[in-house]
Amino acid sequence: MSRGRFIVVEGGEGVGKSTQVRRLRVFLEDGGVPVVVTREPGGTALGEGIRKLVLHGRGASVDPETELLLILAARAALVREVVGPALAAGTWVLSDRYDLSSLAYQGYGRGIGVSRVGRLNSFATGGLAADLCVVLDLPVEEGIARQGRAGKSRDRFESEGSAFLGRVRRGYVELARSRPGVVLVSAGGSPADVEGRIRREVALAFPDAFGTAGPGGR
Amino acid sequence: MSRGRFIVVEGGEGVGKSTQVRRLRVFLEDGGVPVVVTREPGGTALGEGIRKLVLHGRGASVDPETELLLILAARAALVREVVGPALAAGTWVLSDRYDLSSLAYQGYGRGIGVSRVGRLNSFATGGLAADLCVVLDLPVEEGIARQGRAGKSRDRFESEGSAFLGRVRRGYVELARSRPGVVLVSAGGSPADVEGRIRREVALAFPDAFGTAGPGGR
Repeated sequence: MSRGRFIVVEGGEGVGKSTQVRRLRVFLEDGGVPVVVTREPGGTALGEGIRKLVLHGRGASVDPETELLLILAARAALVREVVGPALAAGTWVLSDRYDLSSLAYQGYGRGIGVSRVGRLNSFATGGLAADLCVVLDLPVEEGIARQGRAGKSRDRFESEGSAFLGRVRRGYVELARSRPGVVLVSAGGSPADVEGRIRREVALAFPDAFGTAGPGGR
Repeated sequence: MSRGRFIVVEGGEGVGKSTQVRRLRVFLEDGGVPVVVTREPGGTALGEGIRKLVLHGRGASVDPETELLLILAARAALVREVVGPALAAGTWVLSDRYDLSSLAYQGYGRGIGVSRVGRLNSFATGGLAADLCVVLDLPVEEGIARQGRAGKSRDRFESEGSAFLGRVRRGYVELARSRPGVVLVSAGGSPADVEGRIRREVALAFPDAFGTAGPGGR
């Protein structure tokens, strides 16, 4: 039995990650690929507790280092309880956020720095990396406007100012440029437009499973 | 106004840390020293929630990396919310456990290693170190016997086997040998015996505040 593949959807506030994760799940399942869907922070009992704490609980009083360590604790549990076992069992894993979020939000956004966050990430994940990471990219103002239209109450990060969100976006762009397996995809246009772009990236990354990638596919 | 001093009481299970912290508080206050007493994991609202999670909640299912990251998150919050502000205000801080616990329990006990835990500690504490760390030392079997007599229900670490607790004890001994500001104190004998030993170490470490240290004192 071959190991499953690990796909992550990333991006700033309002880019439509959860919508695209739902659509990508359908695409994978239609392709006959067994998939476990998860999200960060969260995905385990412990992680969902931490999610509440970080996103909605006493948010203003948590300092950047504590915030990062809590998110990393949730990630460590997710890797060991969910992602690792699923991949080992041949199941694919699709996650709404993973280690790149900490690099973008805490490394760039909070100013902790990419190299420090990267070392902490490695400890939390035990080195388990995504096979493909799709970063959805949208101008900050457009993401904020989309959230406003969705009418949800804002969480801790959504409530940050546009300077913070601008650093996060710039971080994602730089990370996508410099890291193998990370691709930047425009989140502009309709959900169906974005879905099409993501499907192309998935087919390119996994030609054996989604044989539409030209001469190399089957 | 001068900065306060930071004293930590450390040690394995059943060595009598909380008893000695209460007695040391009295000694400090009798000496006219304003002191804030805290404990790890805990000491903040977030930290006490993490304490419940780590010591009493679904303990068996938390892996070593997640356990360490949760403890570090509690430590980061404690440093920034309690310890740092108190020291800056000229108040002394007395803590039941601090960074050495992670080196002993997770570094030695869980096998994560001292250098990795040390780097993570530095991130969590922002480099804030204790001025004096008293490690109470007792043979593992004696600590277990003391706990049995106390009749409390056992937490996650107290329930570990003697092999784990032996690694923790050996870790503390090695750390006390190699680190400045860390002293090993026998926890054998009566609480009053141990209290006397700790008072001597405190007087030696802070002769200006507790002038019993001979020619250098006043």
